[in-house]
Amino acid sequence: MSERIARIGVVGLGYWGPNIARNVAANRRAELAWLCDRSQPALAAASARHPHARTSDSYEELLRDPELDAVAIATPVSTHYELATAALEAGKHVLVEKPLAASSAQAADLIALAEERSLVLMPGHTFLYSPSVVKVKELLDAGELGEIYFVSFSRVNLGLHQPDVSVVWDLAPHDLSILSFWLGGMPQEVSALTRSCVLPGTPDVAFVNLRFESGTIAHLELSWLSPVKLRRTSIVGSQKMVVYDDTSNEPIRIFDAGAELPAPESFGEFRLTYRTGDILSPKIDALEPLALEIEDFCRAILDGGVPRSSSTIGYEVVRSIEAIERSLEQGGVPCRADADLAGDLRQAAVDTTP
Amino acid sequence: MSERIARIGVVGLGYWGPNIARNVAANRRAELAWLCDRSQPALAAASARHPHARTSDSYEELLRDPELDAVAIATPVSTHYELATAALEAGKHVLVEKPLAASSAQAADLIALAEERSLVLMPGHTFLYSPSVVKVKELLDAGELGEIYFVSFSRVNLGLHQPDVSVVWDLAPHDLSILSFWLGGMPQEVSALTRSCVLPGTPDVAFVNLRFESGTIAHLELSWLSPVKLRRTSIVGSQKMVVYDDTSNEPIRIFDAGAELPAPESFGEFRLTYRTGDILSPKIDALEPLALEIEDFCRAILDGGVPRSSSTIGYEVVRSIEAIERSLEQGGVPCRADADLAGDLRQAAVDTTP
Amino acid sequence: MSERIARIGVVGLGYWGPNIARNVAANRRAELAWLCDRSQPALAAASARHPHARTSDSYEELLRDPELDAVAIATPVSTHYELATAALEAGKHVLVEKPLAASSAQAADLIALAEERSLVLMPGHTFLYSPSVVKVKELLDAGELGEIYFVSFSRVNLGLHQPDVSVVWDLAPHDLSILSFWLGGMPQEVSALTRSCVLPGTPDVAFVNLRFESGTIAHLELSWLSPVKLRRTSIVGSQKMVVYDDTSNEPIRIFDAGAELPAPESFGEFRLTYRTGDILSPKIDALEPLALEIEDFCRAILDGGVPRSSSTIGYEVVRSIEAIERSLEQGGVPCRADADLAGDLRQAAVDTTP
Amino acid sequence: MSERIARIGVVGLGYWGPNIARNVAANRRAELAWLCDRSQPALAAASARHPHARTSDSYEELLRDPELDAVAIATPVSTHYELATAALEAGKHVLVEKPLAASSAQAADLIALAEERSLVLMPGHTFLYSPSVVKVKELLDAGELGEIYFVSFSRVNLGLHQPDVSVVWDLAPHDLSILSFWLGGMPQEVSALTRSCVLPGTPDVAFVNLRFESGTIAHLELSWLSPVKLRRTSIVGSQKMVVYDDTSNEPIRIFDAGAELPAPESFGEFRLTYRTGDILSPKIDALEPLALEIEDFCRAILDGGVPRSSSTIGYEVVRSIEAIERSLEQGGVPCRADADLAGDLRQAAVDTTP
Repeated sequence: MSERIARIGVVGLGYWGPNIARNVAANRRAELAWLCDRSQPALAAASARHPHARTSDSYEELLRDPELDAVAIATPVSTHYELATAALEAGKHVLVEKPLAASSAQAADLIALAEERSLVLMPGHTFLYSPSVVKVKELLDAGELGEIYFVSFSRVNLGLHQPDVSVVWDLAPHDLSILSFWLGGMPQEVSALTRSCVLPGTPDVAFVNLRFESGTIAHLELSWLSPVKLRRTSIVGSQKMVVYDDTSNEPIRIFDAGAELPAPESFGEFRLTYRTGDILSPKIDALEPLALEIEDFCRAILDGGVPRSSSTIGYEVVRSIEAIERSLEQGGVPCRADADLAGDLRQAAVDTTP
Repeated sequence: MSERIARIGVVGLGYWGPNIARNVAANRRAELAWLCDRSQPALAAASARHPHARTSDSYEELLRDPELDAVAIATPVSTHYELATAALEAGKHVLVEKPLAASSAQAADLIALAEERSLVLMPGHTFLYSPSVVKVKELLDAGELGEIYFVSFSRVNLGLHQPDVSVVWDLAPHDLSILSFWLGGMPQEVSALTRSCVLPGTPDVAFVNLRFESGTIAHLELSWLSPVKLRRTSIVGSQKMVVYDDTSNEPIRIFDAGAELPAPESFGEFRLTYRTGDILSPKIDALEPLALEIEDFCRAILDGGVPRSSSTIGYEVVRSIEAIERSLEQGGVPCRADADLAGDLRQAAVDTTP
Repeated sequence: MSERIARIGVVGLGYWGPNIARNVAANRRAELAWLCDRSQPALAAASARHPHARTSDSYEELLRDPELDAVAIATPVSTHYELATAALEAGKHVLVEKPLAASSAQAADLIALAEERSLVLMPGHTFLYSPSVVKVKELLDAGELGEIYFVSFSRVNLGLHQPDVSVVWDLAPHDLSILSFWLGGMPQEVSALTRSCVLPGTPDVAFVNLRFESGTIAHLELSWLSPVKLRRTSIVGSQKMVVYDDTSNEPIRIFDAGAELPAPESFGEFRLTYRTGDILSPKIDALEPLALEIEDFCRAILDGGVPRSSSTIGYEVVRSIEAIERSLEQGGVPCRADADLAGDLRQAAVDTTP
Repeated sequence: MSERIARIGVVGLGYWGPNIARNVAANRRAELAWLCDRSQPALAAASARHPHARTSDSYEELLRDPELDAVAIATPVSTHYELATAALEAGKHVLVEKPLAASSAQAADLIALAEERSLVLMPGHTFLYSPSVVKVKELLDAGELGEIYFVSFSRVNLGLHQPDVSVVWDLAPHDLSILSFWLGGMPQEVSALTRSCVLPGTPDVAFVNLRFESGTIAHLELSWLSPVKLRRTSIVGSQKMVVYDDTSNEPIRIFDAGAELPAPESFGEFRLTYRTGDILSPKIDALEPLALEIEDFCRAILDGGVPRSSSTIGYEVVRSIEAIERSLEQGGVPCRADADLAGDLRQAAVDTTP
C-alpha cells in the first residue's frame, strides 16, 4: 500500500513563494500540484523549475481541483484573510505566510473557520523551525538557564523598506513568534518608540519593550537603517545565559555565568559576586528551516495534530503587533497585549452567524 | 615669571579618586596639594604614591587651607551636594564625580552657588573627553552625517552591581552626557522598562527610550547581567552612519551608507534604494580621557571659560534620570524630561533667600 | 546586423561544470550549445536546467560540430592534456579548469598548439576575476602600497580531501595565480614542508615559502585540517598594508601604516618609529567572478587579445607547483621555480615535429 | 618558626625589570632585596616604587651581599652569559631573561656551572606560566587531542624593531619554548625564509618550518611589519583541535572536529568524511604569568626541584634558533636542530678544565 501524500498548491510566486515550491517539491510526503500567480513571467519561471506542476493565474481554478489537499499562500498580508478564507471554505488546508492576517479579528475568524472544518491553519513562522531556535527551546525546557530574567533582540540591517508596511509589521513577527515559542505565551504589556526617518508614515526604526506575566521582560531593536546587519539575541537566565546570532558560524553560545547571591549570614555586607565559567558553542545542524516547516505542515495534514507554528501563535503575534501599534498611537504609553483568543473566537462565531 | 598653577585636593580615594590624583599629579598646570579620605589605609596607599601631597581625614582641614584652589570630589553620590556646597562656600572650585548631584534641585542649587561665587563647578563626565566621542562630535558639527535619525546605545556587561544604586543611575549618565554633548541638548521625553532580577529593589537591566525635540530618537540598553561586554553605539544619519565601540581597536567606524529617496518623477512606483560605500576607521589618538578632563578643569580655573563637561550638562543628565525614574514609577508611561534650568535656578534663589 | 556570439560546450558536469554552464547560459555574448558528460544522471540534471543545450556523452560528437566555437573543460586534471589537445586540434577555443595541465611540459605543449592554430587557451583561474583581487591589483599598479615587502596567505579549512591530489595541487594554484597576477611573474625559488596526516601519501597540510626576483617573499599556509576556515592574505608594502579576506563582509582593508626610517642626521641613535593611520574598507562590488571569467573568455574568442587568466599564468602556476614538489622530494631544500616557457616551447616544438 | 624566604636582587631596570621587581615584591616567599642598574634615573624610579629595597649601580656590590640568595637578570642578551656566570660563581641562584644566552655553547657552560654549584638556573620563558599555555599542556597530557599532526603560530604585529636583533631572536623564543613545553622536546630539523625589509641586515619578517622526531610539524610566522596584531596558534590533533589566541577574551577554544577514516570494508570507495561537533571555550584564570614564574623560581630555590621553565628548555630554544640562523645562512636549506646537551656539557667541562 502506498503512503498518502499531501497535494499542495503554492499561491504567490514573488520572493518567498518559489522557496516554498522548492521545498514542497523536495518533500517526500508532498506533491507540488499547482503553481499560481497573476504574473505570467513569475508563473513561467516557476514552471521551468517544476515542469510537473500545473499552473494557473486563477486561484479559483486551484480551489476547484478536488485532488488538491492544501494551499501555501505567499502573497501580501492584506490578501491573507480573503485567500485563506476561500481556501478553508473550499476544504483545503492552509499554510499562510506570516503574519497570519492583518488583524487579530481576522486571525480569530480564520481560526474559527479552520476549527469548524477540521482543517489545518498554519502561519509560516519559519524561525520556529530554525535548529538554533529549537536548541534554545530545549535548553529552556530542560531548565538549564534557570529563571528567564530578560531577552534582548537586535534585528537591524540596511534595507529593505517594504512599501506600505512598517518595520514593526515586517520584522517584529519573527521575534514575537520566537518569544511566544520560547516562553509559552505572549506579552502582557507592550510599549514602543518608532520613527519614520526616510518616508513619512513608514516607521523604519523601532524600539519595543515587552513585559510578560512571568516577570520576564524583553526588548526588540528593529531597523531597516543600520550600517551593520545584526541578528543578535541575548537570553539571560538566573543560571546561564545564551547568545543566539543567526549570522554567526556559532549561532548558539551558552555562557555558564551569572550573579551569585551572598550567603544569608553575611547580611549588612551585601555584596554580589559574579560567576564566569566555560562557554559552549553546541553543534547546530545545518538544516533548512523551511524544509522542516513544510515537513510539519505535511505531518499535520496527514497525521493530524497541531503544527509547531500553530494558529494560536499566529494569532498572538498579530495581537501583540496590534498592541504595539496602539502604544504608538498613544505616544508610547504601555498597552495591554494579552490575547483573549477564546473571546475573539466567540465574537467570530457571533459575527458569522447568519 | 612662573606660570600660575591650580592647587587641587582630591577627596575620596576609593576606586576612582586615585586615578584623579594620578592625573592631577601628572598635569603641568596642576599641583596635587591634598589627599583626603576617612579611611587611613586608603590615605596611606595614596600617600605612598604621592609623597609630596599633604594628607588628611578631615575635609574641613582641606577647605581651611587658603592656598588650595580646588577640590576634586570622588565620593558616593549621596554626599556630592553637601561636600560641593561646603567647598564652594569656602571659595574653592569644584570637580565632582558624575552624577553631579542626587537630584536636579540639588544640582541647580550648586550651579546657583557657583555662579554667585564665580567659581568653576564641573561634573566629571569623563566620556566627553574620550577622543572617540570627540571625533563623533566633530563629524556631527561638520554635518557629515546629515540629519541624525537615531542613536542606539548598548552598554552591558556582567557586573558590577552597585549597592543602593540602580543600573540607570550607574550607567545612564555616560550615555546621557554623550547625547547632551553630541546633540546639544537633552531629551524632551523619556520612557523606560527595568527589572530587578537579582536583588529586589535594585534594577539591573534597563531599556530606555528617548525622544528629542529635533526628532532624533535614542535608545539605551543598560545591564549588569549580560554574558558579553558590549559598548556599542550606532549613530544613524541621513548621509552617513557611525558605529562607536570603545572595546574595539577601531573605536570609530564611518559608513558611507543610507537610503536613497526615489526621484520625484517616479512617483507611483515608490521604491527606495540603498547606498553602501566605503567604510572608514579613522585613526583615534590613544589619549587618556581623564588626563584631558583634568586639563580642562585647570584651564577653566586658570583661564576662565566653561569646561566641556559643563554644570549645565551635569544638570541635564540628572534631570533626565529623574524623568526616567518618574516613567518607571508610572509603569513606563513617557514623561517630559526637558530641563527648566532657569526656573530651577530662580527656585534655588528663592530657597536660599534668608 | 546581429552581433556574433561564442557557441560553447561544457565538458564535465561534476561539481564545477554546472556553474560554468549557468554562467555561459547567462552571458549575452555566449550560447550554451552543448552539455557533455559520461554520466547520464549528470547530463539529465544539467539538461533539465538548460533545455536548449544539446547533450552528449561523447566528447568526439561535440568536437565534430562545426558550429561549436569553444569548449569549457571541467574534468579531473589528469584528463586536461588529452581533452584540450583534441579540442585545439579540432579548431576549438579552450577554457580548461585549473591547473592547466598535470605538468609544465604538457602545459607548454598546449600553449604551442594553441599558438600554432591561433586559438584561445585559457586556464580557469577564477580568483583573477574576484573584484577583491582586482582591487589589490589596482592598488599595486597605482603604487599605493610602495615596494611590496611580503605576502602571507592562510588558506585553511576542515575538508575537503581530494582523492589522489595533495593539498598543494588542490589549493596552491589559487594563491600562485593571484601572486603571478599581482606581482607580474612567478617565484624564483620555492621550498615547502608538508605532512600526510590522515591518509598516507596524501599531504593535507603544507607550509610553502616563495622568493621572488624583486626581493618580495611570500608564504602559503595550506590545510584541509584546520578547525576554523581562514582565507586571509596580508600584503605588506613600504607605504601601506592590505588585508584581503574573502570570508569577510569587508574583504579588502587598507592600512595606512608602516615603519618610518629615522632621519639621516640621527644616525648612531638608530631607532625606527611606526606610523598608524586610517583604515579603509573600500566598497567591493558583489560580482560573481565566474561570470566575469566567462565574459573574458568570450571577449578573447570574439574580439581577440589575451585573457587576464592567460595560458602563461597557467603555465607558471604548474611550473611553480612542480618546483614545490621537487623541494618536497628533496626534504625541503629550496628549488628554482622560475619558468623557461620559451625553452619549453622550443622543446614542445621539437617533440611534436614528425 | 618563620618560613624561609628568597632574597632576590633585580638587575636591569629597563622595560621588563620593573615588572619582575613588582612581582618579587608581591610574592610572599620572596623579598626584593636589591635593585641594580647603571642608569641613575631607572634606579630612582624603581626605588620610589620599592623604598625598602637597597639600590646600587654596581653589580659586584650585589654579589658581595652574603644575604642575597638570587638575582633576576633583565639585561640585553649579549650580557647574559657574563652576568649569569658571575652570579653563579658568587653562589647566587639565577633567573635570566630569555633567551638564556647568546649561544648554545654559552648556555651549556651556564648549565654546567649551575649543576656544579647546585644552584637554580632558570630562563624567563614567561609564556610557560600563561594559564592558556598550561591548559593546552593539560589537554595534550590527557591525550584529548590525540596524535598531534601540526602546530601553526602567527605572532605578528606592527613594531617593535629591536636594534641589533632579528625578529627571529626577538619573537621565536616564545613559540619555541611553548613547543618544547607542549611536545616535550625540540625540533629535529628547521628551515626558514626571512627578509630585512626596513633596515638592511635586520630581518623583520620570518617564516620558519619545524619538523619533530614524532612526525609533528610546526610553522612560525613572525613579523614586526603586519597591519593587525595576531597571536594565533592552531594545534591540530587527530581527535580534537585547539586555537590559542592570547589577544582574545576566549584564549583557548577546543574544537571537537577532525577527519574520519572510512571503514575498512569500504575500500575502493576511499572517501574521507569530516566530523564537526561542539566548540568549548574553557574558563581560563586571569593570573599574571610573571607572578607564577617568580613563584616557581622561589619554589625551586627554597624547596628544590626543577622549575617548569628549565635550563634545558632554555638551552633547546637557543640551539633551535642557532639552527634557524644556520638555515638562513645556507639560503633556507633544512638544518638539524636536535640538541646534544650531554655532548655540549662534556665540552663545557673540557673547556673549563684548568
